[in-house]
Amino acid sequence: MGAIFVVLLELSVTPLGKGGSVSAYVARCLAIIDASGLEYELHSMGTILEGELDEVLDVLKRCIEDLAKDNDRITCSAKLDYRQGHRGRLRSKIASVENTLGRKLGTPREA
Amino acid sequence: MGAIFVVLLELSVTPLGKGGSVSAYVARCLAIIDASGLEYELHSMGTILEGELDEVLDVLKRCIEDLAKDNDRITCSAKLDYRQGHRGRLRSKIASVENTLGRKLGTPREA
Amino acid sequence: MGAIFVVLLELSVTPLGKGGSVSAYVARCLAIIDASGLEYELHSMGTILEGELDEVLDVLKRCIEDLAKDNDRITCSAKLDYRQGHRGRLRSKIASVENTLGRKLGTPREA
Amino acid sequence: MGAIFVVLLELSVTPLGKGGSVSAYVARCLAIIDASGLEYELHSMGTILEGELDEVLDVLKRCIEDLAKDNDRITCSAKLDYRQGHRGRLRSKIASVENTLGRKLGTPREA
Repeated sequence: MGAIFVVLLELSVTPLGKGGSVSAYVARCLAIIDASGLEYELHSMGTILEGELDEVLDVLKRCIEDLAKDNDRITCSAKLDYRQGHRGRLRSKIASVENTLGRKLGTPREA
Repeated sequence: MGAIFVVLLELSVTPLGKGGSVSAYVARCLAIIDASGLEYELHSMGTILEGELDEVLDVLKRCIEDLAKDNDRITCSAKLDYRQGHRGRLRSKIASVENTLGRKLGTPREA
Repeated sequence: MGAIFVVLLELSVTPLGKGGSVSAYVARCLAIIDASGLEYELHSMGTILEGELDEVLDVLKRCIEDLAKDNDRITCSAKLDYRQGHRGRLRSKIASVENTLGRKLGTPREA
Repeated sequence: MGAIFVVLLELSVTPLGKGGSVSAYVARCLAIIDASGLEYELHSMGTILEGELDEVLDVLKRCIEDLAKDNDRITCSAKLDYRQGHRGRLRSKIASVENTLGRKLGTPREA
């Protein structure tokens, strides 16, 4: 595989038994993600990390272990996207779609 | 349930047999989503729509039917989040996490 | 697309505010799925339906609407797989992998 | 957390650029999973492993690395379910739903 094995990992970690508001737990995961030094993007359904396969899986593991300290049940959904030799895809994938359509697309964060 | 049943739907629709670059197909879905009039956010792993349950599922259906015109195999992952009486969550969920941590979080689109 | 548009839909519907045990809510969804008349398979992380695109999305919608009667927050993950002209894939996809490997694979339900 | 941190991990690893039939690649992942010694269940939309958090993430990593040897683009969806102090959930989660409904549910593998 060579030296570089960069992936995007989208993850969403949710405790089941703590009521309908889980933002305090999401914030704890984000603190771990932010401290990892990896590039990431928070959106309204999860967080996307870019990094080596080992690195992003380690962050996923630490988020789950952290929430498990005070949660008996945790669900986590994740999606991983590998493309050989590509890096910087947090931005380039969106740009590619926008270029195809010839315009900027709806992005509430910029509003 | 009352009159309002607003959800967030995150979806990602991908043809399997068209090589490693699928941005042309993602762009076709985004054209459908954009024309729906629903609020949405495109990120690097999918698109998030906000709307009535019926509305967002109808958009999902039309994206798949459109790609099926020239693709024999399509995979789609989706995640749905319902919270009674809440609207505008494309923005408010992120704000809630940022408020808990007391700072803005990594958001490549604004860089 | 012609008359037949059969897909596999895997879904998992979970209320967030009802503690760590959610099997009573899963059972309510299964009652809806079972009554739909569609072929389905329950596994330990979700349920897979086979049917027309319209049919499976309608079942998904009814599951969410049913749980929303007494849950303020619901999360649902789903995955859809379309393959033109194929039907009966609840069984054939597994058989295809087992044929490639030349043996039966771990299937706890049969133990 | 103590010594035991058992989770269910559902995963589905798919190369994007190899046409509509990907069963040969799924079979390679299943060979890795089968050799891991972990309990697992193959279903028509993915495979579910039960094991320590470290163990299941290591299997996920090795599946992706293996397919990356001859695939430029790979997508992987995963879902993880942790419940403190529970083991053997590949079977017990299904039994719990069936007990609630008082009957066996559709399970094509047994037909």
